Amino acid sequence: MSGAAELVTTIAEVRRKVALSRRGGSVISLVPTMGALHEGHGALMDCARRPGNFVVVSIFVNPIQFDRPDDYRAYAIDLDEDVRFCLARGVDMVFAPTAAEMYPEPQRAYVEVAGLGDHLCGRFRPGHFRGVATVVAKLFAIVQPDQAFFGEKDAQQLAIIQRMTSDLDFPIEIVPVPTVREPDGLALSSRNRRLTPEERRVAPALYRALELARDRITAGAGVVSARQSALAALGEFPEIRVEYFEVVDAATMEPVVQVTAPARIAVAARLGNTRLIDNIRFQHPCGSLLQGTVRNSLS
Amino acid sequence: MSGAAELVTTIAEVRRKVALSRRGGSVISLVPTMGALHEGHGALMDCARRPGNFVVVSIFVNPIQFDRPDDYRAYAIDLDEDVRFCLARGVDMVFAPTAAEMYPEPQRAYVEVAGLGDHLCGRFRPGHFRGVATVVAKLFAIVQPDQAFFGEKDAQQLAIIQRMTSDLDFPIEIVPVPTVREPDGLALSSRNRRLTPEERRVAPALYRALELARDRITAGAGVVSARQSALAALGEFPEIRVEYFEVVDAATMEPVVQVTAPARIAVAARLGNTRLIDNIRFQHPCGSLLQGTVRNSLS
Repeated sequence: MSGAAELVTTIAEVRRKVALSRRGGSVISLVPTMGALHEGHGALMDCARRPGNFVVVSIFVNPIQFDRPDDYRAYAIDLDEDVRFCLARGVDMVFAPTAAEMYPEPQRAYVEVAGLGDHLCGRFRPGHFRGVATVVAKLFAIVQPDQAFFGEKDAQQLAIIQRMTSDLDFPIEIVPVPTVREPDGLALSSRNRRLTPEERRVAPALYRALELARDRITAGAGVVSARQSALAALGEFPEIRVEYFEVVDAATMEPVVQVTAPARIAVAARLGNTRLIDNIRFQHPCGSLLQGTVRNSLS
Repeated sequence: MSGAAELVTTIAEVRRKVALSRRGGSVISLVPTMGALHEGHGALMDCARRPGNFVVVSIFVNPIQFDRPDDYRAYAIDLDEDVRFCLARGVDMVFAPTAAEMYPEPQRAYVEVAGLGDHLCGRFRPGHFRGVATVVAKLFAIVQPDQAFFGEKDAQQLAIIQRMTSDLDFPIEIVPVPTVREPDGLALSSRNRRLTPEERRVAPALYRALELARDRITAGAGVVSARQSALAALGEFPEIRVEYFEVVDAATMEPVVQVTAPARIAVAARLGNTRLIDNIRFQHPCGSLLQGTVRNSLS
């Protein structure tokens, strides 16, 4: 679409260039990432790249959202490769700051979204969502986008960012983008590349368990028994150590025993040293609705 | 200076009018207040009202920063009178939203500034500064000012807002404005009007105690002994119940035993049912420096 993506590493330069583009009449679109880009990120960029949009992709492995130092260290990215990915995708600017640029002093100001991080990943990764909300608030203040794009695969993150945006009055439209999956159902993730061939082979069981639970509830089963069926199915695989499997309200991220409002069925599990998460949207027991999942790549 | 101040009560209208003014080339200046305006607020407005500035005064008694419901209820303001005050002061817009406009749903997203609220008022008013930081972040996102003006009388609030602004990358200049005092030294405050005549008579002892401590340190005394002298002086007044009297680092708001960096001497006390605070800046034991206090009104 547009020309070559420009790599920018300082906050001052991002501000200058975005302001220029805004004065030129562009809508500013932000796609926040931690690099290690794949077709899931590609789908975010494709959604952002509309006529008249100036698309900024941020690439920043945010240290304050890692609850485990070893996980942070393991999160290696190849910036050159990621920039080429963005370039091929026709984005207008890549913002890839250093940790020192983003955190020149130890961070003291944090954004917390009460309640929404109490369950699911929040329970297993203390401080994680505080770090996510804080860095996204910073990126919002730096780029001042009109729109920002987040994947539904990170459903709890999405709910927290949506609530932060409305509660703190950021004048930004949050656009959720459906999860992109491999043909066998595995949700795309930067962490998939860490799986052994055997782990990769069993990993799609997570998505199948989500589908199973959804189908059971659709067929009239209660949440508790649907959850038990899904856990039993996952129990077949000794390689999969389930961290949680829950049906939660899509807005509050709190477990429900009956699906009355839009909900999500969400799972987290460890396969060897790799932690995977996935979820599907679920509206009502009356059938319908499979939004939030797209089989095959969007690209 | 400029024409009549305009009263705006909705976020949407503020955004529209500020955007218009910004496109016209104005610098946007924000003076956040809780109403009950006095010459201290007048000094903030006078500082904000520079050629080319569009001055927005917000008037909002923020429920989420009150640690005591009775204190919130007692904080009655006369909006008509406050708007007239702003009008006479030549501000361009008064933003006076309802609580329902600012908090259409129960607030879940909060801004916290770790450490800076551990001492002084933060220790006695749990949740207070979280509420302050959060509402100021909201006002920043709503008005998107280029500059915001805060009184030095609320020194801990000022330090917290400064840190929040830099940590969360708000592109806003925080302008501290010196405390305005009555001729007898009492810092102006909306709460002063609640004092009985007798309480009003003894209230200036707070400022004199701050001066005493500063003079002792300037003369070579240690922080501990200077503090004891000040507390002894305040002990002469049975009407004054001291909550804290501390010498703190001006940036971290943590108590110091030796003054090496810019510091503040700060006091909080109850006179009857009224809680008063005050502070003075203090640079170095080598004499100099009396910034942060202005005798008599600035207006």
